[in-house]
Amino acid sequence: MRDVQSERDPRNVPLDYVGIENVRLPITVRTKEGGKQPTVGTFSIGVDFPHSFRGTHMSRFMEVLYQHLEEISQTRLRVTLEDIKERLKATKAMIEVAFPFAIKKSTPVTKLETVMYVDASFKAELNSTRGYVVTSTVTVPVHSLCPCSRDISEFGAHNQRVDVTVSWQGDLWIEDVIALVESSASQPLYPLLKRPDEKYVTEKAYLNPKFVEDIAKDLFLKLDPLSPCFRIKVVSYESIHPHNAVAIKEKRAEVS
Amino acid sequence: MRDVQSERDPRNVPLDYVGIENVRLPITVRTKEGGKQPTVGTFSIGVDFPHSFRGTHMSRFMEVLYQHLEEISQTRLRVTLEDIKERLKATKAMIEVAFPFAIKKSTPVTKLETVMYVDASFKAELNSTRGYVVTSTVTVPVHSLCPCSRDISEFGAHNQRVDVTVSWQGDLWIEDVIALVESSASQPLYPLLKRPDEKYVTEKAYLNPKFVEDIAKDLFLKLDPLSPCFRIKVVSYESIHPHNAVAIKEKRAEVS
Amino acid sequence: MRDVQSERDPRNVPLDYVGIENVRLPITVRTKEGGKQPTVGTFSIGVDFPHSFRGTHMSRFMEVLYQHLEEISQTRLRVTLEDIKERLKATKAMIEVAFPFAIKKSTPVTKLETVMYVDASFKAELNSTRGYVVTSTVTVPVHSLCPCSRDISEFGAHNQRVDVTVSWQGDLWIEDVIALVESSASQPLYPLLKRPDEKYVTEKAYLNPKFVEDIAKDLFLKLDPLSPCFRIKVVSYESIHPHNAVAIKEKRAEVS
Amino acid sequence: MRDVQSERDPRNVPLDYVGIENVRLPITVRTKEGGKQPTVGTFSIGVDFPHSFRGTHMSRFMEVLYQHLEEISQTRLRVTLEDIKERLKATKAMIEVAFPFAIKKSTPVTKLETVMYVDASFKAELNSTRGYVVTSTVTVPVHSLCPCSRDISEFGAHNQRVDVTVSWQGDLWIEDVIALVESSASQPLYPLLKRPDEKYVTEKAYLNPKFVEDIAKDLFLKLDPLSPCFRIKVVSYESIHPHNAVAIKEKRAEVS
Repeated sequence: MRDVQSERDPRNVPLDYVGIENVRLPITVRTKEGGKQPTVGTFSIGVDFPHSFRGTHMSRFMEVLYQHLEEISQTRLRVTLEDIKERLKATKAMIEVAFPFAIKKSTPVTKLETVMYVDASFKAELNSTRGYVVTSTVTVPVHSLCPCSRDISEFGAHNQRVDVTVSWQGDLWIEDVIALVESSASQPLYPLLKRPDEKYVTEKAYLNPKFVEDIAKDLFLKLDPLSPCFRIKVVSYESIHPHNAVAIKEKRAEVS
Repeated sequence: MRDVQSERDPRNVPLDYVGIENVRLPITVRTKEGGKQPTVGTFSIGVDFPHSFRGTHMSRFMEVLYQHLEEISQTRLRVTLEDIKERLKATKAMIEVAFPFAIKKSTPVTKLETVMYVDASFKAELNSTRGYVVTSTVTVPVHSLCPCSRDISEFGAHNQRVDVTVSWQGDLWIEDVIALVESSASQPLYPLLKRPDEKYVTEKAYLNPKFVEDIAKDLFLKLDPLSPCFRIKVVSYESIHPHNAVAIKEKRAEVS
Repeated sequence: MRDVQSERDPRNVPLDYVGIENVRLPITVRTKEGGKQPTVGTFSIGVDFPHSFRGTHMSRFMEVLYQHLEEISQTRLRVTLEDIKERLKATKAMIEVAFPFAIKKSTPVTKLETVMYVDASFKAELNSTRGYVVTSTVTVPVHSLCPCSRDISEFGAHNQRVDVTVSWQGDLWIEDVIALVESSASQPLYPLLKRPDEKYVTEKAYLNPKFVEDIAKDLFLKLDPLSPCFRIKVVSYESIHPHNAVAIKEKRAEVS
Repeated sequence: MRDVQSERDPRNVPLDYVGIENVRLPITVRTKEGGKQPTVGTFSIGVDFPHSFRGTHMSRFMEVLYQHLEEISQTRLRVTLEDIKERLKATKAMIEVAFPFAIKKSTPVTKLETVMYVDASFKAELNSTRGYVVTSTVTVPVHSLCPCSRDISEFGAHNQRVDVTVSWQGDLWIEDVIALVESSASQPLYPLLKRPDEKYVTEKAYLNPKFVEDIAKDLFLKLDPLSPCFRIKVVSYESIHPHNAVAIKEKRAEVS
């Protein structure tokens, strides 16, 4: 059977990336507590294409995913990248897996046990110049109360849901990054609040007003000692406007 | 050239609907002020399929859209439906067009002129039993402040963005329905607020707390005398929870 | 602490629905093979509101979800509905849970084992007049090849990805409905195809052309003996157009 | 009235970006034919924040948008950036506007006039080191037919809708980039095709098979002489798989 992909290509145009995206597979992710959490992974995987032939054998991406990635870990991601880089004779390989990740939290006053999902992902890259780099990302929904609105008004203050997305390199548990994000906002979100809890978070938020700029700055100061390279994006779904407010703060690696 | 669609079909399975969706075309929509607003329409159009032949000639849907629908009006929608019902020998026809619709609003204290878009749509149906029915829909983002949070807390109250979607039959301007929705919420949203405006809406919202239930009830009482048949859906993006609160209230036509 | 929700409401406007939506929780779903599949559920839950007081105690929805719904089954859904209907003194209750569901499939020629996710949901309703009704839904992506394009062209035929959404009442496994859908399309989709498999599905699809109308009709004839009440929606992401083609076929229950 | 934003901030954490996003406004965009097309713009606008005070005056972003941006042009975008950079005492400013853009096309054989929308955007950046840079982007949906499937099969070949996204610097009309993209695919998409047109595109596509890699390479060779810096992303919604295939090719500016 003819192998069209492997035919010589006179165009001589190397590509930066070829791969597949939107592949869903069951995975398990390790938790800080020491367990393994089953969830649903959505994968992208690809390589560079420095070749003089026509195209990539795309089915090999699925084969390496099936072979290696039931359980997600830094070791497994690296082995997968080395395998696909070898099979497709590439100089770079990239894999990304996004998944909903469940965390436990207690209601602040009544101390009821609850579960809340956040969206997380791991992106692993392997290439000859930079070696092996893993970037983790989590988006944590939190509560912000506007300092300006509070200080200019006789009573009340507008507040809203805010998404804080953090991407980082280095060994940090998702659970720990979530805690740092939540402690930088006016208040965390809770899936369940009984009346004493609602009174508590309402008053606490009023006493702890934050602009998107404040959340980005406070979180930067907490992450700075812990990671060599990270990015914070804060998006506030302003409750008095139909648009969103945004703040971004990056720490770039010394040599990149 | 063979006409596969028109061949006899021994399966004898009439269909409830065949059509196309996600067709974008430039349109103009009439405004209450008397002007015509240019915008981008996303159309669905279709008919029932009571036939003993194999399939519909889908290209005719595009032909009627190009022929009739540069300017959206009740008359044009009806003519389009009659045309497609005739051409496809159907007993029912449906057309829906969704579009962003711009409204003007002034900032509440500083009286600056602003523009805000809402998502709106018209759905027109023509059939032998119910005749010609047009349903209009608009989704208005507003502000709600929680009565419970306010009353149990010593200071502050959680508040958030809320989407109110109203679908109605009868002659009501989109602009008027938007005004009714905004007057049923804790406060309207504004694209621009200077500090005196922000103080105003913060305090006004605190003095006008609303559950999703309150917004649905208050809006029902305002719409009830104006429309024979409508549906209100209120979705609050709770600022202290990662999930949304919902209230729905319908008024059904007497005989349907 | 004041209970604002329970205060008398002079407006006297009963609501059709109050509830919460977009709640994510870890769940397990039973499989036809006899196992339990862990996945991530996204819940909506609510009740009607026939009362003369001001609002619902929304936190109770979360409490019943935490209490009952780790494992999804018809029994659990019913108990949950009875519980929330009781706690909120409602006459109707509704719960819906959407989740990605993994199925196994072999490549058609090379017989490799693969896994593919589809989107599924269960919706359970309880009320005094209709009793307890569960509606299951699954969206299956398949392949369609256009009969018209094939028959008028000397070679080739346009083909594309198609989403078939089926909602049904009655005892049918999701796995069985997926198989019926796939057998009604030009070909199933596969996450992995080696070259002999790709040749197989390409040729098989060419020999088995289907309009959206054909898929709806063929699937109707297969489901008709198995379910008293169902709805089929076929959406084709036409590969020669920027819009989609749609066909819908419903079977309504005799008395509803 | 207190100006919380302007207060001294001892944290001393400059931010990379503060701004607003998801602002919709009516705009007009110039067309190659010499006209002005009315459409709906969705804006992001922001600046860096090198300051030792607490936060930005977000309302000024809306004020500059209202003042300058009814008609989108390179000149207007630049003036807007200079204005906001000045007002917020920033060293960098960025504005992006995304909009649906309508193009005319004739059916290939029957020569009927049609209109098709594509998604486009302009992003303008102003800073002291790189000066003023505008990046234009358009996503063009096209048709691809798989060379491998065609060559290994006795008849037929799988084909599908493909999105090609091109971002470029330099003076090129959106209309011209769309034409280059469409000529690099197996076939363009058409909103309307009568039977002779459908026969034409089916056969033409079969004679012109393209991998995602082929589209990226062919388009690169056409754009290379026209732009100093561009990025091509090709995403194929594979009609035999539930996932997508991707190819990316960039041309980076010599000195950046």
